[in-house]
Amino acid sequence: MDMRESIHRMKLEAPAMAASPLEQRNRALELIAQALEANAQSIFAANEKDMASAAEAGVAQTVQKRLRYDEAKLRDGVEGLRQLQELPDPVGRVLLDRELDQGLELRRVTCPIGVIGVIFEARPDALVQISSLCIKSGNCAVLKGGRETANTNRVLFDVIHAAVVKAGLPAGCLLQAELHSQIDELLRCDEDVDLLIPRGSNKFVRYIMDHTKIPVMGHSAGVCHVFVDRDADQDMAVRVLVDAKTQYPAVCNAAETLLVDRPIAAEFLPKAARGLAERGARLRGTQEVVDLLAGEEGIPAVELMTDDEFCTEYGDYVMSCKVVDGVREAVDHINRYGSHHTDAIVTASDDAAEYFMQMVDSAGVYRNCSTRFADGFRYGFGAEVGISTGKLHARGPVGLDGLVTYKYRLVGHGDIVAPYASGEKSFHYRELG
Amino acid sequence: MDMRESIHRMKLEAPAMAASPLEQRNRALELIAQALEANAQSIFAANEKDMASAAEAGVAQTVQKRLRYDEAKLRDGVEGLRQLQELPDPVGRVLLDRELDQGLELRRVTCPIGVIGVIFEARPDALVQISSLCIKSGNCAVLKGGRETANTNRVLFDVIHAAVVKAGLPAGCLLQAELHSQIDELLRCDEDVDLLIPRGSNKFVRYIMDHTKIPVMGHSAGVCHVFVDRDADQDMAVRVLVDAKTQYPAVCNAAETLLVDRPIAAEFLPKAARGLAERGARLRGTQEVVDLLAGEEGIPAVELMTDDEFCTEYGDYVMSCKVVDGVREAVDHINRYGSHHTDAIVTASDDAAEYFMQMVDSAGVYRNCSTRFADGFRYGFGAEVGISTGKLHARGPVGLDGLVTYKYRLVGHGDIVAPYASGEKSFHYRELG
Repeated sequence: MDMRESIHRMKLEAPAMAASPLEQRNRALELIAQALEANAQSIFAANEKDMASAAEAGVAQTVQKRLRYDEAKLRDGVEGLRQLQELPDPVGRVLLDRELDQGLELRRVTCPIGVIGVIFEARPDALVQISSLCIKSGNCAVLKGGRETANTNRVLFDVIHAAVVKAGLPAGCLLQAELHSQIDELLRCDEDVDLLIPRGSNKFVRYIMDHTKIPVMGHSAGVCHVFVDRDADQDMAVRVLVDAKTQYPAVCNAAETLLVDRPIAAEFLPKAARGLAERGARLRGTQEVVDLLAGEEGIPAVELMTDDEFCTEYGDYVMSCKVVDGVREAVDHINRYGSHHTDAIVTASDDAAEYFMQMVDSAGVYRNCSTRFADGFRYGFGAEVGISTGKLHARGPVGLDGLVTYKYRLVGHGDIVAPYASGEKSFHYRELG
Repeated sequence: MDMRESIHRMKLEAPAMAASPLEQRNRALELIAQALEANAQSIFAANEKDMASAAEAGVAQTVQKRLRYDEAKLRDGVEGLRQLQELPDPVGRVLLDRELDQGLELRRVTCPIGVIGVIFEARPDALVQISSLCIKSGNCAVLKGGRETANTNRVLFDVIHAAVVKAGLPAGCLLQAELHSQIDELLRCDEDVDLLIPRGSNKFVRYIMDHTKIPVMGHSAGVCHVFVDRDADQDMAVRVLVDAKTQYPAVCNAAETLLVDRPIAAEFLPKAARGLAERGARLRGTQEVVDLLAGEEGIPAVELMTDDEFCTEYGDYVMSCKVVDGVREAVDHINRYGSHHTDAIVTASDDAAEYFMQMVDSAGVYRNCSTRFADGFRYGFGAEVGISTGKLHARGPVGLDGLVTYKYRLVGHGDIVAPYASGEKSFHYRELG
């Protein structure tokens, strides 16, 4: 059966999946947890094959770390599945309960989105997380993982799928795409797929956004900023900045640009550069930054950069730097060059902080803490399917809440609109919830 | 100044508009109400010109009714503006307030979407409604109304804009597009426009959806169903059906298809056809429907139709009709041929109703009432900018709630991720809200 036909069948099963009781969805999560443990050896064996191929292909060590699926990751996965069972049902929540008129009751009730396509990087633990979030939220899912872990993905998917069927959920509720060519097939299924969540490189996500009519949730770039205000505790600022840049530079919530308030620039910049240098990171900056740091010892030379490079996401131990005139210019810079992901101010001034958090147009606006906190786990969502920089539907880290929509249920007793249109009757709203 | 440049400037003003206090936004609404009344004569004079052109062009009477802007519509508009002032602020609502760890507090707070483009049909009252909803929700808006009321729109817009400026809101927060060619310019502003809401014909909305990278909210079709179950009160069913089809056939929440349960088809269909005929509506149907109604007196002949015509939106006194085997087949038909707008079941059976409301994948699922209730005013939202059949963000009638997004505010005291990543510290979630 081809991909499009399978996805069309999935669409037909989506209402049954959406109607499945919470107990059954939680049972599926528990059976997956048990099956992961029972099948650990065959999963690890498959992963060994992927790791061997990666080593042979000369894949970088940092990337190899992501490809690996070992005891620790399996334990985390099982732990995550148990936590997910404890979370309240995202489906069936009554968001509004209103009597429009005597005996005519309107309810807005959450329900699953339907069919979700997730295209994710080569990280076997992501497959477990994403499929379990979709199951908990009553959605059907088409999963396409990175090809570097194809063997691991295949075994994991089979284990998960068997557990889901054993729990009595529709067999068609999960589907794995294995071929790269199937991505383009998936992008054409706009009649049957309700939402696409692409993860991976900017270029890849941009490609997905540009080649489908299916709504896309995610982010193509993560250009996060740290602005150090004139009223900052400078030691705190160095600590936050160094964490935001160097704690894990390859991820989207790592900071890419340092903005420093002019009155403190001469004093703060050397401290910042040294703090970064200690963790192996260097600055690129405007002429002003280059001049301010010229002759400083113990730091790498600052490379001169142009204004249009301020939208660069390095994903590495490099950081753009600029001196600005106060919080207003910082906000303008961030709204212009940023990616609306997560941006932080370090300041002791409530006014500056409030202005920054109000005016920066990003999913996350932080005061006196590292941008690296922008993460579904850290926010306490149990897990995340991705981070959205769009403003519609979910914004920021997307957990279970972002995987549901709602429908309006209206119950009457033969009510018709004509007498309201004529003015004979009128609505008498009463909140019941 | 060209359109794109104006929209870019609007984008730069959006954060200030978003930060405007509720009192100022409400003040703008009140000033608009007063200005509408003060300028009534010049507004009516402009409308007379549009009405004269329409009469000259031979525009249908039903359409002319929509173009007219008279005392009654002005009064309704002023009334709506006063009601809107009473509604709670959609901006700044705290949706989540959680301590992640000692002194590290996360809040999810609603905020305006930013810049919204609304392209709407020739209906001057819509211009008032849409601009006031955008103002109340702190959004900037680009408004493009139908050209048949260009004179009325121009005067109304000037009146509204002057009031907004008088209230102290940014002058660039509202912009009117007057030329049809500006629609294509607007569609290309994906860097600056956050959301498009197109209203109008299916074909037009489809064109918008296919020609922009800006997220679009709305609906291209309204194929609503009434399913009359075997356990229906048949008199109630006729009443609901006739209202759903004939009370205002040109609108999207009017019913287009009647589905009748087989056990009651022979008894119910003649009653339905007569009820519709009394209001000037006729049926088209499958061979079974044609046969069941053959020889019935007092009803128009039933035209035979093909299966693929069941996705037709007539917008007229015509209705598709089919006999189905129970609620399951009805649901399958609706999910296949419908437009996910609003669908109703008439039944006394709780089981059938619950199955229908759970399984039909539409924004509105109704029991024993007319599909014509699907409307922001009737739901008590104050007004609506449109009705969405998409599942992301807002679904169904979109009022103030659909015009906001949220951002995450995280406040710490120098908190960094490193000690959490190493296991030295761990999160201690505590709900504060």
